[in-house]
Order: sequence, then C-alpha cells, then structure tokens
Amino acid sequence: MNVYEIISTKRNNGRLSPDEIAFIISRFTADGIPDYQMAAFLMAVYFRGMDHDEISCLTRAMTESGDVIDLSDIPGVKVDKHSTGGVGDGVSLVLAPLAACAGLVVPMMSGRALGHTGGTLDKLESIPGFRTSLSTDEYRQLLRRIGVAMIGQTATVAPADKKMYALRDVTATVDSIPLIAASIMSKKLAEGCDALVLDVKCGSGAFMKTQAEARTLAATMVAIGNKCGKKVTAFITDMDQPLGRAVGNALEVKQAIEVLKGRGPADFIELTLALAARMLVVGGIAGNNDTARTILLQCIRSGSALMHFEKMVEAQGGDPRVVDTPDTVLAVAPKETVVLSVRTGYVRAIDTQAVGMAAIALGAGRRKQDDRIDYGAGIIVEKKRGERVVAGEPLARLFSAATTDVSEAMAKIAGAYTIGDERPDPLPLIHAELD
Amino acid sequence: MNVYEIISTKRNNGRLSPDEIAFIISRFTADGIPDYQMAAFLMAVYFRGMDHDEISCLTRAMTESGDVIDLSDIPGVKVDKHSTGGVGDGVSLVLAPLAACAGLVVPMMSGRALGHTGGTLDKLESIPGFRTSLSTDEYRQLLRRIGVAMIGQTATVAPADKKMYALRDVTATVDSIPLIAASIMSKKLAEGCDALVLDVKCGSGAFMKTQAEARTLAATMVAIGNKCGKKVTAFITDMDQPLGRAVGNALEVKQAIEVLKGRGPADFIELTLALAARMLVVGGIAGNNDTARTILLQCIRSGSALMHFEKMVEAQGGDPRVVDTPDTVLAVAPKETVVLSVRTGYVRAIDTQAVGMAAIALGAGRRKQDDRIDYGAGIIVEKKRGERVVAGEPLARLFSAATTDVSEAMAKIAGAYTIGDERPDPLPLIHAELD
Repeated sequence: MNVYEIISTKRNNGRLSPDEIAFIISRFTADGIPDYQMAAFLMAVYFRGMDHDEISCLTRAMTESGDVIDLSDIPGVKVDKHSTGGVGDGVSLVLAPLAACAGLVVPMMSGRALGHTGGTLDKLESIPGFRTSLSTDEYRQLLRRIGVAMIGQTATVAPADKKMYALRDVTATVDSIPLIAASIMSKKLAEGCDALVLDVKCGSGAFMKTQAEARTLAATMVAIGNKCGKKVTAFITDMDQPLGRAVGNALEVKQAIEVLKGRGPADFIELTLALAARMLVVGGIAGNNDTARTILLQCIRSGSALMHFEKMVEAQGGDPRVVDTPDTVLAVAPKETVVLSVRTGYVRAIDTQAVGMAAIALGAGRRKQDDRIDYGAGIIVEKKRGERVVAGEPLARLFSAATTDVSEAMAKIAGAYTIGDERPDPLPLIHAELD
Repeated sequence: MNVYEIISTKRNNGRLSPDEIAFIISRFTADGIPDYQMAAFLMAVYFRGMDHDEISCLTRAMTESGDVIDLSDIPGVKVDKHSTGGVGDGVSLVLAPLAACAGLVVPMMSGRALGHTGGTLDKLESIPGFRTSLSTDEYRQLLRRIGVAMIGQTATVAPADKKMYALRDVTATVDSIPLIAASIMSKKLAEGCDALVLDVKCGSGAFMKTQAEARTLAATMVAIGNKCGKKVTAFITDMDQPLGRAVGNALEVKQAIEVLKGRGPADFIELTLALAARMLVVGGIAGNNDTARTILLQCIRSGSALMHFEKMVEAQGGDPRVVDTPDTVLAVAPKETVVLSVRTGYVRAIDTQAVGMAAIALGAGRRKQDDRIDYGAGIIVEKKRGERVVAGEPLARLFSAATTDVSEAMAKIAGAYTIGDERPDPLPLIHAELD
C-alpha cells in the first residue's frame, strides 16, 4: 500500500478500501505524507467523488486521528445541532439553551465565521468575558450541571480535519461534498453526542446554492451518521434570504435574547422550534413533534430557556447582565447608515451572499484569518423577500465604527435586492427533512 | 492574479489566459508557489485538459524558464527527431549520424530510460568513455564540425519541466496529454532546432496504448510547434511489438552499427529511413521522399553514415573501435537463457510493455532512480508478430550477468507472447503522418 497508488486509484475512478483510507489519513496526520501528494489526492476526490462507504471510512479515520470525547457517564441523552452556515443564522444561540431547558444534554462544538457566513463562536465572544475555550473538565462539568455548553473545537479534536482543511483552503478543494460531509461529521462524531440534527442551508446565502446539492450533502451526512452508529436527521432549509433580521455578532446575540423572551422574527422562531422539536423527539423527551413544540414554547413562556442561557453565559465567563440590558453590555456601533430603496414594489430576491459580504465590509467578519472582528458591526434587514417597499423607504440599516468606510457595504446591499412589480410566490422555510 | 484563482479556474473548466499560465510557471520555477498548490493545479489539468492555445502558452513558459540555445550562427538547417519512447527503439543511434551525413545539422538532446522504455543516453553510455554531458561550447563545436551531437539536457534547459516532472511523477499526473506535450515540446524548443520530426509510438509497448491517444498527442504537439514557429511533423508508428530484434543498451548499439553497415532488421531500417527522409525533406536537403531515401541509402552504402557515427563517438569520448569490433568494446553478458515456445503456431501478439519490464528485470533498466544499469543485459527477440514458431523453438534469448535471477524475466517473456493457429493480419509500421 502506498500513497501514489491511492491517488492513482481515485484518479482512475476506483473505489478505495477502508485500509487505504485509514492509511492515507493516519499517515497524513502524522506528517508522513507530503502536502503535495495530499493535494493531488484531494483534487482527485473533488473530481471523482466517493461512495458512502468510502466517506464513512474517511470520516471515521478523521475522527480517530484525535481525541474522541466520551460523555456516557453524564446522565441524559446528548443531542447536538449543526448548521452548514448561513447569513443571520444565530439559531444555535437560542436552540442550545432551549433544548437543554427541555431536558436534553447539548454538547455543542461550533466554529468561527467562514467566508460570507457567520460563526457561533464569534457571536458568543461578542458577550464580554465569554470564553469558548474550555478544558474538557470544565466542558463536562457544565454539561452535567446545566445541560449545555457551547465551545470551540480543541486542537486535539480531529486534527486530520484541521490539517486537511488548511490544505483544501489553498488548493480549491473546499467545495467537494464528500470532503465537506467528512469534515463536518468527523468533528461531530468526536464530541460525544448520541444523536445529531443537521440544518443544511440552501440558496444564495449558503455554500450549497441549489436544493440538489443540499440534498446530496444532507443524504450523505445522514448515511455516514447511520453507518457510524449515530442517529442523524437532516433538514434542508432556506438561505435565499438572511434568517431573521439581524446580521452581525452583537446584533444577533441581542436578537437571540429577544427570541428567548418570546419575541423576535417569525422565520427565526419557526426554524428554531422545528430543529429543537426534532432534537426532543430524537432524544426521547417528546413522543412527537406537537408535544415537543408544546414543551419548547412552555420553556420560552416560563422564562426557563432564558435562564438556561443566562446560566450558560455566566458559567462560561460572560457578563450575565446581557440578558436584561443587552445594550449596556454588548458593543453598540456608533454609526448607522440607512440603505434606501430607489423604487416601489415587492422584494423579489435578496442575494444573501452579498449581504454576508456587506457585513464583512462593515467589520462584522474577517477578510483575512487574523482580522479583528468589530462585534458591534452588522446589518438590520428591514425588508425581506415578498415584502412591499416604497421608494425612499429603508431596505436595511448598516451599523459600523465611526471611521469605517461604508460605501462598499452600501453598494453590496443595494445590489443584493431585486425589486419588482409583482409579489413573488412565498418560499418554504423548510424544504425537506431526511432521516 | 493569484495561484488559488488559477487552480480554481482550471478546476471549473475555465480557460487560462497567457498571463495566468506564464505567472504560475515562472513563479513555480522560482520556488514562489508551494508544491501542494502546483500538485492541485496539475491534477485539475489532468481532469479538465487544456486547449491548444493554453498548451502553447504553457510550453513557451516552460521553455523560457531556462536557457534557450541559439544555433543560428551554425550553418545548415537544424532538424531533430524525438520519439515518445518504446521498446527496442534505438532509431536515434542510426538516424542522427545518418541525417548529419546527408547534410543536416542534428542537435539531439535525449533522455534516459523511463518506465519500461529505453533511453538514448543510456544506450550511448554503454559505449565505454562516451560522454553525454557536454558543455554548450563543446556541443556547438561538434555540430559545426560533424553536424551531429547527442547529449542530455543540461540543468539549465527548461528547469520548469524538471521540477514539474518530479512532482507529476509522485502525484499520478504524468499521463496527461497537455502535460506530456508541453514537457516534450518545451525541451525541443529550447535546444535550437529549426524543425522537428516526432515519432509518436502507439501500442502495448508505448505510453499511448491506443491510436486515438497517439493521434491526440501528435496533433497537439504539431499544433504547439506551429504556434511557436517551428516546423513540426509527427508520425504515429507501431509499438505493438519491439522494434528490431535487440532490447537492451549494448545490444541496441550493436544492432545500430549493423544497420549503419547496411544490414539489420527490416522494420528498424524502414522506420529509420522514413523518419530520416522526412527530416531531409523538411530541412530542404531533398525535394521529395524518394530523393531523400536515395540520398540516405547512398550514405549507408558508401559507409559515410557509419563514419559520421564513428566520428561522433570519438568526439564525445567513446571508444571508436566499437564500429569495427563491437564485441570486444561493448559489455557482453556472460549468461544467455533461451525462452522456448511451448506450442506451435503463429505469433499473434506480443505484450511489449512486458518485454520492456523483462529487460529491466535482467538489469538493462532501472527500477529505482539510482539503480545501476547492466549495459550488457537485454533481450534478442527471435520471433516477431506474424512469424511461425514450432514448439521448442526459441521465442527470445535473454542476456544477463551470471548472478542475475532470470526467472522473472523468463516468466514475463513467456507471458508476453500470444501464439495461435492463424497467422494474424499484418499491422502497418507507420499508422499515420501529421503535419
């Protein structure tokens, strides 16, 4: 068995054996395979793909390249949710404490902003003091005590994935469904959850632009999960417009707190309930969807979900006063710029990736890996798809530092909106559910 | 312009601009692009291909990565021949002095054995003392004095190709027609010839196994040559059996000397005359093919071609007595093993790559880059395609050192022959000619 033959087999559309996949991943992780051979292999996978057995072996090899956390001694069913990333998708901020409040254990390992999409870790860190790097001991204590912890991956989780992703990022091999699926699932298999609910985003603001791609990715991850003995459900949900109204770190935290208080945008609430309900059913807390939703709404109405959020923030070092007086705790952008509509009509489409890029231009994300984020920066979406707008009315409000040049963001937002005379047909929020 | 975008454009089946191609090649040669990005790029080219304009730009960029020899001050038309490699293809040994004898200048830069195929440099070095590394000054002097020199590429010729080839060799990106064409042509454009005759081998002993592949490679190289202002003609010739009777370094030199003396195998002579005649026509020595053949036969009959060979050997440090008494000058293998036919019938096919591999097993080639070649080792092919053989008659004679284990070579040769009851239809030696 040697690397050249493995590259060559995949290049010639052959099927790799479990041993071959385990060999290339373990050797690469141990620096025993040069990057140039791995790059050629990844490009061959980009073109030839992998079947579900190969992807499962790849996922398992990547998981086993590092620590696998065992949470079996913590009472309760551990259920996590993962989103493939979108614009305004701060659902995890609400869903994790909400599901914990309803009786699940939610061991959530999230990531940072990637490309035009936001990242849960960055959003949490906009709460002053909030620590997303906990030791495994702290992490386990939190799960035991309040049923939820939201952290970043430690360096010892799936190191193969870190090394592979760094290489994919510079060799144009990121957007390969087998590699995306294995990357996501290898980390999720390492974090110790019993079941997983996936939110595969689809549309102009997602990495998967079409429903066909999203379906393939979702089906792949469900199949991998099942082959690896985890209960996995996937939702395919709309990302043809920003979710909710807020895009940007502190803005999204503030919106999440509103939702936990029983207010907030309807689409955001609906998606959060749908995903959390599924977690409750999968985790055995509720027998069916209706019961699950009743429990979840009760958790919100009673204030218990908000309390779980507050306890989690406090336990992870954040300022718990964010719950009552977010505006005095969170960064508030000093400059507000309004983008007005130049015509009257209906919002027919929003190029959501452009909205994400506008948020980055305002300082809410990173252009380069070591850029500092302006937590207060972001966008409030005033007009969503299907809504009527009159010429001169605001489409969106941009928030930024006083010195930030907002011209690029303004142009991107103005260009992102398509306004026409006819009201567009409504799009479903949830396209499909796979398990 | 950056490397990531270039990889990504090619990956997405886009067309690269001349600037993009020049950028990636010049930066890579200057160690400004990491091997892993180049490996991903090469694999993307493997899958997506390149059009003739792209390949021409690639070739030119590779040529310009190093020294381009200018032979314009040397009188005469400079015409070279290049073969894509085969088994028993020692044509250059005869053709170069023969064409020089007929009045051309033949600046021939050759390579070493590659895979199962032999290499002109290795064959020449089986003549004791023969030096294939000459300084550019020595090279020019020889061309001026005797009209022919046969050398290896210096390190300063097309360094981009050397670096790219080393990477392709370990990343399964060797067998890509655009990359093969650019590799061959970049070196040929650097050596200072005015015109080039290509012998694209096709069949079980060639790198191009099918006529379709050979035709594509030939047409690609002719197009590149024309775009780069060189007159290029390509022959597609048979490599479904070894050319001539000898396979192995000293054995092929001895056979070449026989041919220069007016004897030797018919197919070897015919192909040599066809290629050399074309060189004479392209170089303006003869008005047509018939005249060219008359001149060439006269050069052989008169002994002048052999004298040119002898002068070249002497000028490059080799023992000129090889011409008169090859057996006392060249290495002679002490052990001869005969592979007998187990049945009576006609030779219907010869797996020629297996014959090449058998020669390597006898010591005539290298398994690893630093293996030493046994110059005396090799094979004499007793039965060729279409010939009748009686059970117990020799198919081939194997020559090796006394201590060499010949069992692998014997098995390969026995397995290479398909013998059947019916005489196969003859195959043409030359399939096509493109210009």
